[in-house]
Amino acid sequence: MLNPEQAVLEANTEFYEAFAASDIGAMADVWARKEVVVCIHPGWQALRGRDQVMASWRAIFAGGSPPVRCTDAAVTLMDQMAVVVCVERLPDAKLAATNIFVLEDGLWKMVHHHASPFTARDLPASDPPPPPHSLN
Amino acid sequence: MLNPEQAVLEANTEFYEAFAASDIGAMADVWARKEVVVCIHPGWQALRGRDQVMASWRAIFAGGSPPVRCTDAAVTLMDQMAVVVCVERLPDAKLAATNIFVLEDGLWKMVHHHASPFTARDLPASDPPPPPHSLN
Repeated sequence: MLNPEQAVLEANTEFYEAFAASDIGAMADVWARKEVVVCIHPGWQALRGRDQVMASWRAIFAGGSPPVRCTDAAVTLMDQMAVVVCVERLPDAKLAATNIFVLEDGLWKMVHHHASPFTARDLPASDPPPPPHSLN
Repeated sequence: MLNPEQAVLEANTEFYEAFAASDIGAMADVWARKEVVVCIHPGWQALRGRDQVMASWRAIFAGGSPPVRCTDAAVTLMDQMAVVVCVERLPDAKLAATNIFVLEDGLWKMVHHHASPFTARDLPASDPPPPPHSLN
């Protein structure tokens, strides 16, 4: 029996397996059917609603999926909603992804996907140290 | 008295007002203090934790904020968490944004921001019509 966090990560894995396999049936099963879903592909405006979102996956799969892998997945779980932040690794690019899931009939289903490419960069410097105490 | 959806949109507006004004104090007040926060700026990897996220805003504000405006905001509300999808309008670019808020001491606070530029494109074609019924 998976705990809720494991169940969310499993749903996230199923999304990437469907993506990498260009499996439109599996992708249809990943996404929620009762909530309004949103998908923001890299460089695209937000697509809203199951019809638009699934049509976008069909268009992407028609060209053949890239061999996408998901790493560094971290879950934030809150009641009936969970957010997964992860890295999507392609042969020549890395993307940051926000994936949101809701419980639908006891199963975690995707309601939101947002992915955008990044170039790893140094983290911004933290706060400068406070000024030294005055000796006065 | 604002209803929950209005209260979430107000928190979203406060985020963009802090952003456009390079107001680090207001930005610090927008973000949650109890939850682990995540920020994915355009072209960046995910920044995790309040220290990293606030340091990134300080770095951005040091260069002066762009005159960002938020339009087309739509809220999905679920118990203690809310997701806002909106368009960020800059003089020479449009970005799609995912903003997630949680209730913290009765106030909606940002826990997640993800923005990425887009070029508006035609929506993918919907399902092809089903084949005509056979006349046989």
